Amino acid sequence: MEIQENHTIWMQKAIACAQEGSTPFGALILNQQSEFVSAFNSTKKDGPTAHAEMNVLQKLKQLDYQSKNELVLYTTVEPCPMCMGGILWAGIGKIVYGASIEEVSKIIKQIKIDSHTLANKSWYQPEIIGDVLKAECLALFEGWN
Amino acid sequence: MEIQENHTIWMQKAIACAQEGSTPFGALILNQQSEFVSAFNSTKKDGPTAHAEMNVLQKLKQLDYQSKNELVLYTTVEPCPMCMGGILWAGIGKIVYGASIEEVSKIIKQIKIDSHTLANKSWYQPEIIGDVLKAECLALFEGWN
Repeated sequence: MEIQENHTIWMQKAIACAQEGSTPFGALILNQQSEFVSAFNSTKKDGPTAHAEMNVLQKLKQLDYQSKNELVLYTTVEPCPMCMGGILWAGIGKIVYGASIEEVSKIIKQIKIDSHTLANKSWYQPEIIGDVLKAECLALFEGWN
Repeated sequence: MEIQENHTIWMQKAIACAQEGSTPFGALILNQQSEFVSAFNSTKKDGPTAHAEMNVLQKLKQLDYQSKNELVLYTTVEPCPMCMGGILWAGIGKIVYGASIEEVSKIIKQIKIDSHTLANKSWYQPEIIGDVLKAECLALFEGWN
């Protein structure tokens, strides 16, 4: 088993990152050597675009890789169009998320376009895997605002 | 005539900003007092998410306003889904662009979802005005790569 295929373990780390930031949103980018960078949502401090995925994309330079296509991004919530756009522009090869935009949009305001729709309209199609530890990721929203 | 309705003048400034950065992409955000912040695309230096609109959203704190809904964002090219997502999360009230995503996607790779589609899927609908100095904005792509 390749370590990077062990989605549950890495999603647990994304969840821990979300909890560290006291938000439901945590993300990490993993390379082929099981090294990673991580970030949580920091919109209260850094402004409206500081979603976990945008924040972790800013840390790409800290990670070793030959092609961004070999990197995997884990995120507790399916990337919104802003973040999915950023992920596509970055050229990330695989995205693994917990709770879907459809589910989360019942709890918070959202731009209701899912990650598959964005990928299908771009110049390449990364692999997208959803519902990894979905219940645990949705639980992050309890008591949060 | 309200100054902020004078879209041609402000688009000229966005074009000048694009030219300053030697890219086809320039953006500015204007407040009610005709003060503005501006930015150009800096992806070569700052990574794949450093589009003009994302960069200028980072400068919002430098601008005086009561509500972001009263701000106008000018951009030489219709915002891509990443940037339009950011603009929606920021709550900008009006977007004015030059060349459309449809036109520009004939020249460069793009995520082919227009700004109206994103706005229609969000929790509020900013006003969107296109084709302001379109020819001048498209001319920015000549000789650029």
